[in-house]
Amino acid sequence: MYEFDARFARDCWAYLKNSFRKISGSICAPRGFKCAAVFCDIKRLGTGKGSEKGRKDDLALIVSDVPAAVAGMFTTNQVCAAPVRISRQRAARKFAHAIVVNSGNANAATGAQGFNNARLMTQLASKALSLGEHDVLVCSTGRIGVPMPMKNVERGIRACAPRITRSASNARQVAEAIMTTDTQRKEIAVEFKIGGSTIRIGGICKGAGMIQPGMATMLGFITTDAAIESAALKRALKIAVAQSFNRITVDGDMSTNDSVIALANGLAENRRLDRVSPYQQRFQAALNFVCLELAKMIVRDGEGTSRVVALRIHGARNDLEAEIAARAIASSSLVRASWCGGDPNWGRILCALGYSKARIDESIVAVGYAPTDSGKILFAFRRGRPTNVALKSLARITSAREFDLHVDLHRGRGAFVLYAADLTEDYVAFNKGDVTDPTTLGG
Amino acid sequence: MYEFDARFARDCWAYLKNSFRKISGSICAPRGFKCAAVFCDIKRLGTGKGSEKGRKDDLALIVSDVPAAVAGMFTTNQVCAAPVRISRQRAARKFAHAIVVNSGNANAATGAQGFNNARLMTQLASKALSLGEHDVLVCSTGRIGVPMPMKNVERGIRACAPRITRSASNARQVAEAIMTTDTQRKEIAVEFKIGGSTIRIGGICKGAGMIQPGMATMLGFITTDAAIESAALKRALKIAVAQSFNRITVDGDMSTNDSVIALANGLAENRRLDRVSPYQQRFQAALNFVCLELAKMIVRDGEGTSRVVALRIHGARNDLEAEIAARAIASSSLVRASWCGGDPNWGRILCALGYSKARIDESIVAVGYAPTDSGKILFAFRRGRPTNVALKSLARITSAREFDLHVDLHRGRGAFVLYAADLTEDYVAFNKGDVTDPTTLGG
Repeated sequence: MYEFDARFARDCWAYLKNSFRKISGSICAPRGFKCAAVFCDIKRLGTGKGSEKGRKDDLALIVSDVPAAVAGMFTTNQVCAAPVRISRQRAARKFAHAIVVNSGNANAATGAQGFNNARLMTQLASKALSLGEHDVLVCSTGRIGVPMPMKNVERGIRACAPRITRSASNARQVAEAIMTTDTQRKEIAVEFKIGGSTIRIGGICKGAGMIQPGMATMLGFITTDAAIESAALKRALKIAVAQSFNRITVDGDMSTNDSVIALANGLAENRRLDRVSPYQQRFQAALNFVCLELAKMIVRDGEGTSRVVALRIHGARNDLEAEIAARAIASSSLVRASWCGGDPNWGRILCALGYSKARIDESIVAVGYAPTDSGKILFAFRRGRPTNVALKSLARITSAREFDLHVDLHRGRGAFVLYAADLTEDYVAFNKGDVTDPTTLGG
Repeated sequence: MYEFDARFARDCWAYLKNSFRKISGSICAPRGFKCAAVFCDIKRLGTGKGSEKGRKDDLALIVSDVPAAVAGMFTTNQVCAAPVRISRQRAARKFAHAIVVNSGNANAATGAQGFNNARLMTQLASKALSLGEHDVLVCSTGRIGVPMPMKNVERGIRACAPRITRSASNARQVAEAIMTTDTQRKEIAVEFKIGGSTIRIGGICKGAGMIQPGMATMLGFITTDAAIESAALKRALKIAVAQSFNRITVDGDMSTNDSVIALANGLAENRRLDRVSPYQQRFQAALNFVCLELAKMIVRDGEGTSRVVALRIHGARNDLEAEIAARAIASSSLVRASWCGGDPNWGRILCALGYSKARIDESIVAVGYAPTDSGKILFAFRRGRPTNVALKSLARITSAREFDLHVDLHRGRGAFVLYAADLTEDYVAFNKGDVTDPTTLGG
């Protein structure tokens, strides 16, 4: 059964790979998108302490030349940041024109003033770009509970607006400006044909901690020059996010600020895609690929992450049960710590499955390991007891930087894949703060 | 409202403290209980490598002079160890006589052979002690998925049986024999009066990792010389466990072997307690105290634990919702890492509340910190925004070895207390295993 799945996956992959190709660049690869980033000291580092280390750009604008169909997916956290509340409304409309985004301050848990500040950010950006206020979306990421330093933000937006151009180097700068604890820029672009038109999709994202189901602590921005109906774009983004950003987990914490926003400006001049268009599948496949690649970049760059595990659950009674089983395993501190050591500790996997809400029968469940995407599974536990496979052989797989963990519940046809990170000492060291250094503490 | 709660808690505490007193000793403090422990190399350390470090006793017997009323609470994990399946059946009967327990091997995920081995352990013990097989319960803790070395176990039981005596030093040895990754022995005893009779309750337990709701990776053994009906003992243990062992969490992992077993042999010759007996309340209070103190010892000795936080949730719509909120906070890797650094990071608390299934309204929820059991709460977040309390004042509280975290959802009267541990680098280092040293890996 696994063998069949793996082959099927490879077939799909081969088909998809032929339908689009990766190109260089990111959000400026599609026609008609400009961007720029500046440093305006949103973390209030001042000019003294930390200014060397801290002088990373922290405010950016992403602008379409023409009104673009818009779609957005946002955190489901009940405590959500002010910019999320504003952008959620505006992404529900048909068109948008620009996005203003900052790092260093999440503008979350900041009360009514926070909401006003987020709106003011869109007003300032719309004025600087000569657009309507409601055509501008806003995203913030960083510390929680700290008022946004609006003077700095205003200065930043004014300085940023005249600099927007369509250049790969500006796009790189923007990808860096949205980073917080990320160690690497995350960007991608693909190209494919629809009829005689060449369509491009580009994307950048950020996210490293607070990465979990229902979207990670992450911001993602997707641009495309495809002509596509707003409703079709919204549906496509929902599908793509469900299969990518919602299938990764670093530490099980869901953020207050998660947002993925897509803009489609139609400058590729293809025949406009809609839900029933024959080419919509191709657009969807390319968008899925862009989102999944970005999502995987987030797991790989997870705070302190030393190993990424693709959790492949099969044989559940339905897909939801498979997801529940996957999340129980990926949330177990003990399992994640064992991954850190490269330990093929299937006992902890079984234990996590046992206390999950998925229905587990110890006498039929199977647990195995395989090199990434190989489908060559070495089973560690099957038919109620450990197999004869040598620990050394299992450890050879689990000591790699990435590997697949296969669980077959043998109860049905439900399946789910979750990309998870290990739990390392570095993660704890990174997140614990230090009472002797107040700058590391607090909301 | 908090002030009232704290005062009420103190009143209850004062009343309870007067109804019983702590005495020295543990499971041999009540009349008519004997025990002993031996080393029989269940981990198969051999005589070479690790023998110095590893030669801790690993097999023990706990025996009542006369048949004792029995009660047991066991893991709710669907994957449960062979000894759990046997002891669960036998604890459902009215009486039991003895418990055989080993550390070093959990006898979990060991198939039919594991079940036979667990039963064989009770047969060997019953023979060595001249008891009926079904009067002996069995518990195991340690590595998962490794066959029990029955020759060593048999040798151990034979050596152990002649050594049983009623002595505090033997009880200490037993408390040490059941330890796995524990760094400290966990024991307690109390004494109280019912009519003219002096009743004693003693207890020992073990547990350090895999500590979570629905019982921790823990074994607990409670002895008492109270005369109490079997049904009343079962009910009392259920209540006590719900308020103690089920209210602690170290790492969110629920084990396959958790068991708490109580034996009540009636040698105090009090008028037999039953469910409606006027003294049943007093027995319950003492049993609650014994279980809660043992449970707290487990959290304090949690793997790598540097801080213990009493999570006090108030104002939920009901107790279950309060529990859900508490568990979301205590399961958040980010929150737990911040505790490790002594960081009063209320932003992460809010965030975890937000993604929990509890209903949260950001504009009314309050988060505060207080020194343990003081009720003197410094609020960090209230009415939708951070308070003016200085971070330094909060950090003074959160940098203590133990502190209280108060959350008021302001929606009702539901409340819950959960004792939780921080997440430290030591926890990860301890649990990650090491691919270069195979003895640290596997099931």
